[in-house]
Amino acid sequence: MQHLITTSDFSKEEILELFEDARLFKDLTSNNYLNGKIIVNLFFENSTRTRSAFEIAAKRLGAQVISLDVGRSSRSKGETIFDTIANINAMKPDAITIRHSECGLPGSLIEHVNCPIINAGDGTHAHPTQALLDLFTIVEHFKGETEGKKVAIIGDVKSSRVAGSNRKLLPRFGMEVCFVAPDCFKYEGDEYKQYNHISEIIDEVDVIMSLRTQLERHHEVYFESLNEYAKDYCITEETLGERDILLLHPGPVNRNIDISDEMLKDPRCKVLEQVSNGVAVRMAILKKLLS
Amino acid sequence: MQHLITTSDFSKEEILELFEDARLFKDLTSNNYLNGKIIVNLFFENSTRTRSAFEIAAKRLGAQVISLDVGRSSRSKGETIFDTIANINAMKPDAITIRHSECGLPGSLIEHVNCPIINAGDGTHAHPTQALLDLFTIVEHFKGETEGKKVAIIGDVKSSRVAGSNRKLLPRFGMEVCFVAPDCFKYEGDEYKQYNHISEIIDEVDVIMSLRTQLERHHEVYFESLNEYAKDYCITEETLGERDILLLHPGPVNRNIDISDEMLKDPRCKVLEQVSNGVAVRMAILKKLLS
Amino acid sequence: MQHLITTSDFSKEEILELFEDARLFKDLTSNNYLNGKIIVNLFFENSTRTRSAFEIAAKRLGAQVISLDVGRSSRSKGETIFDTIANINAMKPDAITIRHSECGLPGSLIEHVNCPIINAGDGTHAHPTQALLDLFTIVEHFKGETEGKKVAIIGDVKSSRVAGSNRKLLPRFGMEVCFVAPDCFKYEGDEYKQYNHISEIIDEVDVIMSLRTQLERHHEVYFESLNEYAKDYCITEETLGERDILLLHPGPVNRNIDISDEMLKDPRCKVLEQVSNGVAVRMAILKKLLS
Repeated sequence: MQHLITTSDFSKEEILELFEDARLFKDLTSNNYLNGKIIVNLFFENSTRTRSAFEIAAKRLGAQVISLDVGRSSRSKGETIFDTIANINAMKPDAITIRHSECGLPGSLIEHVNCPIINAGDGTHAHPTQALLDLFTIVEHFKGETEGKKVAIIGDVKSSRVAGSNRKLLPRFGMEVCFVAPDCFKYEGDEYKQYNHISEIIDEVDVIMSLRTQLERHHEVYFESLNEYAKDYCITEETLGERDILLLHPGPVNRNIDISDEMLKDPRCKVLEQVSNGVAVRMAILKKLLS
Repeated sequence: MQHLITTSDFSKEEILELFEDARLFKDLTSNNYLNGKIIVNLFFENSTRTRSAFEIAAKRLGAQVISLDVGRSSRSKGETIFDTIANINAMKPDAITIRHSECGLPGSLIEHVNCPIINAGDGTHAHPTQALLDLFTIVEHFKGETEGKKVAIIGDVKSSRVAGSNRKLLPRFGMEVCFVAPDCFKYEGDEYKQYNHISEIIDEVDVIMSLRTQLERHHEVYFESLNEYAKDYCITEETLGERDILLLHPGPVNRNIDISDEMLKDPRCKVLEQVSNGVAVRMAILKKLLS
Repeated sequence: MQHLITTSDFSKEEILELFEDARLFKDLTSNNYLNGKIIVNLFFENSTRTRSAFEIAAKRLGAQVISLDVGRSSRSKGETIFDTIANINAMKPDAITIRHSECGLPGSLIEHVNCPIINAGDGTHAHPTQALLDLFTIVEHFKGETEGKKVAIIGDVKSSRVAGSNRKLLPRFGMEVCFVAPDCFKYEGDEYKQYNHISEIIDEVDVIMSLRTQLERHHEVYFESLNEYAKDYCITEETLGERDILLLHPGPVNRNIDISDEMLKDPRCKVLEQVSNGVAVRMAILKKLLS
């Protein structure tokens, strides 16, 4: 039995096979691959977008979904997360999808269950399904030719689990990842090149991945307002000029903070394609882990 | 592709065809017309009743339903309704059902989606599925002979989207609509006859449609209490006497404010039949728009 | 048509037949017994555990589930529970599962509906599906030989609906039930032997059923803290020693208050098996009442 806690749970070959399925699922029509399967969605952090994508993916495959709002009941009765999981596991679901604010929590549950665990985001640690859909969008855009491509991840790199997963996943497919961030949002480590401003490398990059500025994850106030951040880090028409750059964002986009209104309408910006791909890739992941 | 924003989106012929389906669905047993379809329910206004009716209708047709409690997550992240819809649309559902407090909002979404939008109530504007189920209940009651029938809509006509939809729909089927309301609740316009008290026309009407007094939609206090309103506008046995009048209400009924306990038990009162018809008519609507 | 309000709604023979089905369902894989059926779950009291078990049971049988969060909408509009039920019933579901804080409420709804009502717990009164799964776990453990077995129910007997249902059900299968509780939690009646401390009868019992101490159901403060209660009533390795006793608990367990961490890992403790059996027994119940 296989889990998906971080992208390293899948080999490069497995990921390419996954993408073959995702390609078949791209129109998002329904099939019967997971008829009779039950998937429990445990979202301790609220997320309309990711929860919906997982739910639609499961239902398009013919599976049933049970969404547990665990926060409201079990926890108010003082139950530990491990007891909650042991109980859900005793009801014998075919998979458990979990989002939690604590780094590493989904991985620590593996030994307590008899079904695949899928990490739908854990704190600032990892968001493997997002990174896989980002990679899939890049692979499709470059028709598989990802070797040597340069990807600039811009924004709150420090607390982004999307950055956390992508910086490990993309280099496995020959890409070079660098970060663009103000000092307060910089990655703590020196394995990646880091820049203060996108202008320093705009002429070299093939992909810009803008991140959502998540002020709620910081304990200190770094900017007087998001507008101050936006002055230097918002991706605008001026930033890209005529360059052939693929612009991505995990959503939801802070309009005119992360990306400008105009750039969101620009054909180089593929944020909605990422959303569609997100369902297709999750369908492929669920099919792989459950069937 | 067709949407249902107001009842005028359907021709008279289409509505009669719809009712043929609704008649077949009247026992509300399950079928497979929409197997493999996914319907997203977006209720920005809380509504157990309408949401349940839509959900049961969809599931009786074999469709899957995803209910998004959009208010709690996306909006708290500052996303606009148009971005929320664009994202949901990118997940390629087969239809989106939406209830929102803002008049005209569901209609404004049409250009942003690739699937049918069904208006499940927008502010004080329209509630087309309610009007269609009301019409269906009237058509069934009079065995199709609606020509020349007089319908008195009584109560808070001013802020009722149910009245808003019915006053346009019923005349298309030969019925004459009039309003009975205190001045503060009167319709602002002169296309319809308006009365202060039901006694003025009780001998002429074939149908009384009582409305829910929605104090929450008014900014001013018009009555010291609902009981004061009820003195003049509650439909009682005394109001109807022995007359052969069909009594309707969109629910939930304020007992002894809108309709008296006794009249709710009277065979002339068809509020629960309206609820059953509501599922059958919505099944017919979903089948029409999705298949 | 049959309902399940208390365990006395089923004859001994019916229960044994039910258990034959539950045995077949024990691996909790999916089937099609209830394809095309719609079950409405009405939980007025929050309960992740019981609601999930019912939902998984229904979906494993191929039924569709509609979970209504009735508390939030209908009730805020001032609707009575009887009107809410009449409306839901008019939508023609195939069964209604209801949990409510008021004793006797589910039973009082029977005359208002055309489908089976399943009591998922009403106040301090009854919790028939829990008692049936407890009995099933006991029957399986003793390979059907329940005659003469002694069961000690320990803890807050006074306000426990689990105790309320088990004290009536278990004796029908030849078992002798006694209670162990501090005075403040004792059963008000003299049909059952009652003890102050488990040590008084530990050498005679075959089954210990520990209850969740539900301080929220008491109006007075009986203990300074749950730890004080635990000193005398927590089931530990010391309590059981080497004795061959089956240890049960309806969950969620207050760790080291109701049962110690060590005993929860002990093979004599079958709380997770109860959870699995809970889905299997509810599948059997739904199959019986709906097909």
